[in-house]
This record gives sequence, structure tokens and C-alpha cells, in this order.
Amino acid sequence: MNVIGVDLGGTNYAVGLVDEDGKILARIEGETKVDEGPDAVVERLVDSILNLSKESSVSAVGIGSPGSIDHVTGTVKFSPNFPGWIDFPLAEKIEKRTSLRVFVENDANAYALGERMFGVAKGLDHVVCLTLGTGIGGGVITHGILLRGSTGIGAELGHMNVLPNGPKCGCGSRGCLEALASATAIRNFVREGFERHPESSLFKLKKPEFVTPKDVFDQAKLGDHFALQIFNTVVDALAVAIGSLVNIFNPQMVVIGGGMANAGDFLLDPVKERAKNYVLPTMVGTYKVELSRLGKDAGILGAASIVFERLFER
Amino acid sequence: MNVIGVDLGGTNYAVGLVDEDGKILARIEGETKVDEGPDAVVERLVDSILNLSKESSVSAVGIGSPGSIDHVTGTVKFSPNFPGWIDFPLAEKIEKRTSLRVFVENDANAYALGERMFGVAKGLDHVVCLTLGTGIGGGVITHGILLRGSTGIGAELGHMNVLPNGPKCGCGSRGCLEALASATAIRNFVREGFERHPESSLFKLKKPEFVTPKDVFDQAKLGDHFALQIFNTVVDALAVAIGSLVNIFNPQMVVIGGGMANAGDFLLDPVKERAKNYVLPTMVGTYKVELSRLGKDAGILGAASIVFERLFER
Repeated sequence: MNVIGVDLGGTNYAVGLVDEDGKILARIEGETKVDEGPDAVVERLVDSILNLSKESSVSAVGIGSPGSIDHVTGTVKFSPNFPGWIDFPLAEKIEKRTSLRVFVENDANAYALGERMFGVAKGLDHVVCLTLGTGIGGGVITHGILLRGSTGIGAELGHMNVLPNGPKCGCGSRGCLEALASATAIRNFVREGFERHPESSLFKLKKPEFVTPKDVFDQAKLGDHFALQIFNTVVDALAVAIGSLVNIFNPQMVVIGGGMANAGDFLLDPVKERAKNYVLPTMVGTYKVELSRLGKDAGILGAASIVFERLFER
Repeated sequence: MNVIGVDLGGTNYAVGLVDEDGKILARIEGETKVDEGPDAVVERLVDSILNLSKESSVSAVGIGSPGSIDHVTGTVKFSPNFPGWIDFPLAEKIEKRTSLRVFVENDANAYALGERMFGVAKGLDHVVCLTLGTGIGGGVITHGILLRGSTGIGAELGHMNVLPNGPKCGCGSRGCLEALASATAIRNFVREGFERHPESSLFKLKKPEFVTPKDVFDQAKLGDHFALQIFNTVVDALAVAIGSLVNIFNPQMVVIGGGMANAGDFLLDPVKERAKNYVLPTMVGTYKVELSRLGKDAGILGAASIVFERLFER
């Protein structure tokens, strides 16, 4: 049984034809062009879906979309980066045009489903996923169930507080995990630290506004003092969050994904080690912390997993 | 259908005959006397259960026990305040002696079941419970399911980190909710603050070691500076934890119980208000924060709810 997974991002989208083993048989990518409005985006997705469904019989389509999703109706209730998408019936629109059954899920939730179906957390019933990118997304599977919460907007793990009175977060609060350990947070630390740390090798490479999280990790690895300071802030915030999440969910695995997971063991090892400071002694040995290995396929595979999960649920 | 609920505490126990509406028809209380060993405790519980089951036909017994419980077998894996209770087959021992089916659950989990069945959270499927006492216990119901976690020791909400590098916690970590907002934490703040705040009205009443959390709340209400400082620490810690819990679970309700819930609206109102600083704007209006109204019956009713939950599950 093949399915189609749609990774709908604010900038780009990717549509893949996926088999039951998580192999992507074909894919089409393009720019989302959100500014052209929801119907134009639907057109682009429909074209890609119809193209891929010509190649093989397809049982259904899964869409991982940012924002607040009504997963029952497949409606986008609202999505910060998709202006005008308010109560937009995404599934219905695409079903009408493709005659395929369409399921929509929040992208971070889809990501967790993908890790459980095809990733490092394959087959596990208790998984906490963090995606470290521009923001920090969260997805939780507990007792085999995707944690959506009472109104479908749960698992906002990026907005756990890890440092009261810490840096301002985009959500309006202070000290959220996202305000300390996302790519945006790192870029902010760099810009704010420029005047105090002009000697940092970060600024020998580029102007502050062009320094990337990768640059910070690379220079931290080389021992640059300011880069290491930022790196330690990121690691500590992740350690606090993971410690609390382990104490809350008693999961089998915590998966770290998203672009920043590319930092590999240089990030993973200290996070694992320092998380132990916040984990109950009784929890030691009950969980693993792993990096995602789905890479850039995570979005399509997560979206495809929505279909497998829904069809399996029935 | 009547059931028996057993609230097994480190100091006292209470056994109640409970009907389906949560009415306690009869009760027997006594000292646990943990030092006499597990079999002596079992004898006392068996006597009480047999006495109560004489009065009415009883379908089963539920026991809420501190510590790490294997809820499938009804075994106490270990319990910090019950020395020697290691892999102790509590359910089996009591079943043999009473010929009644016995279910055992961690007491904080039982508490959450009780709130959902008979308390302020009646009928809700998404509930987070915090019990503020000597320690801080947690119980979570998400999507109708009791969150036990992969090895049955989840929902340790008292050990969420709410202040990195905060006060030392009994678990070995620093800055856990329990280290800032439990009765023990308050007693510690009082003792540690005595030398710096000898003018506090707290110390006009009693020696530092005899000052209770209630004294602190009473004096805070009267405007005592040091008592207010402690009170604010407690409120802030609870607000941070509740904010994160709302963002994680997207619950319909957060219930605050335990002895400290007796502080009433004086505690509840500022906790509710300050929690808003840590809750995502999208979560506003999706949840309530309420005080438990089960009072001293919470233990028996929680234990009784275990039976209703298990029999209903089937």
C-alpha cells in the first residue's frame, strides 16, 4: 500500500510517494508561495499529488501542516506563518480535487508519528520528540497515543519554561525552551553579544546578522569562548527540558530532530549527560536520547505516517 | 455496586466502603506502623477490608500506595517511605486473605482518577493534578488515559524543573517544583531565613522549626514581608509548572489538591493569574485551574476510583 505524504512548510513544500517501509518512491518539491493565498497553494499541492498518484495506486494523502489543526475535519484553524488560513478546510479542498482521502495533522505531531513508524523510535509507544529549527516543535506519543490535547494544540514542548525571567520568546513569555535553544534564539544571542565579544572568531567570519547556528557550533568546537557560552546555554536549556519531560512522560526515548540535529554527537552527548542532573534517579536507565536519522525526509515520512496511523486506528 | 478504597500512607491508612456516586458509606482508619514490616501492614488492611465487606457486598478493592507500583500485578516495586517493600506482591497477599479482587495504583495516579470520577474534574478526559503536601505528587489523565509511562513511574510532576540551580530537592536535583512549593520546601525556607528575618511575625509565634506552611500563608495574608516572600516563591514555582503543563497537555483542567490546597483562593488566585505569563496565547480560555474539593476523602475516593476505572476499562 503506497500513500502520499505532504510536508507543507511556510517557504517550501515537498510531496512524496511513500511505501509501507518508508521508502520514498518519488517526490516533487516546490515553493509554497503563501502570499498567493490558500487556494493557489491548494492548486500546487493538488498538481503534485495527481502527478504522483499517476505512478502508483495510492490509498490516501497525509499532510503535515504548521499551526493549529482540527485533525478530525482536516481544517487549518490558524497558522502563524500562513496569513488568511483561518478555519481553512484543507483536507476537504484537496479531497474534492483528487478524489483521495486526505488527513491533516500538525507538522510536529506528524513528525513524531514518522519517528515512531520509520525512525529511531520505530515501534515504541512512549516517545517524546523535539525538533530544533527556527522554532522548537514538540510531538509526544504516550501509551501509543499521539498527544493532541483537549483542543488539539498540545505538545507545545518548545514553550515549556526552562528559565524563569529568561530571554523573551516569540510567544510573549520569557524563558521558553524555544527562546533559549532554537536557531532563532542562537541568532539573537549572536547579535546581542556582538558588542561585548567583538574578539569572538564568529565575527571574523561574518557580520553578526549572517552568523548561523552551524557557525556557532563549529566555533564552539574549536574552543571560541563566546560560541561556547552560547552552546552551553543551548545545551543547558535542552537538558532542563528533557529532564522534566522524562519525569513527566517516563518515555522510552527522546528524539531530537530538526536542522540543528545535524550538529550530531557534539550536541547530543552533553545534552544527554546534563539531562541526568534533572532526571529522577528512578528514571535512570529507562530512556534513551537519540538524534533523528530521517534527515530531510522527516517531513514527507511524518506526513505519510499520518495515513498509516489513521488507517491503523480504525 | 460498592467498592473498597484503601488510602495507604506512610503514617496512617484509611479504608472506606464507597458507592458508585462516591459516597463513603463506612470507614476505618488507623496507623500504618510501617516499622512492623509489610506483612503486619497487610494484616491491618485485611482486617479493615473484611470488616467493611461484612456490611455490604463489595465488587473489588482499590489501593492507592506511595512509590513505584506495577499496576498490572499490583506489586509495590519500591516505596521510599516503606523500607523493605521491594517487589512486594501487595494485591496478591490481600486477595488471598480476602478473596476479593485487588487493584493497586500509585497514590498520585489514584488521586487523579478520583478527581476525574468524583471531583471537580468529573467526566473530563484531559486533567492534570498536583497534590501539594510534604512532597508534590502528580497525576495526569490525557485523552481519557491515566499517564503511567513506559515503566509505570511517569507523571512525576513534582520533579519538573522550575528554577535551574534553585534549591536542592530531596531527589538530588535542584529547582524541582517540589523543592520550591511543597510543605517541606516552605519549612526549609522558614528555617533558612530565620537569621536574615528575625523581625518576621512568623518567629513571634513559634520557634522556626515549628512554623507550618499554614502559619506562612496566614502571616503572608497579614502582610508580613518574609512570609510574603516565601508565598511568592511558592506561587511563582506553581505558575511556571502549570504554564508548562498547560502547553504540554492542553488540558481542560488543572486541579490543585493536597493539604496546602486548604489555603484556598488566597493561593489559587495568584497562581492562576501568574500562570498566564507562561501559557501560550492560543491556550488562553482552553483550561481551568481549580482547587480540589475532595478534602480528606481524596485518598479513599481515589483508591475506590481505581476499581471503577479497571472494571470500566475491560
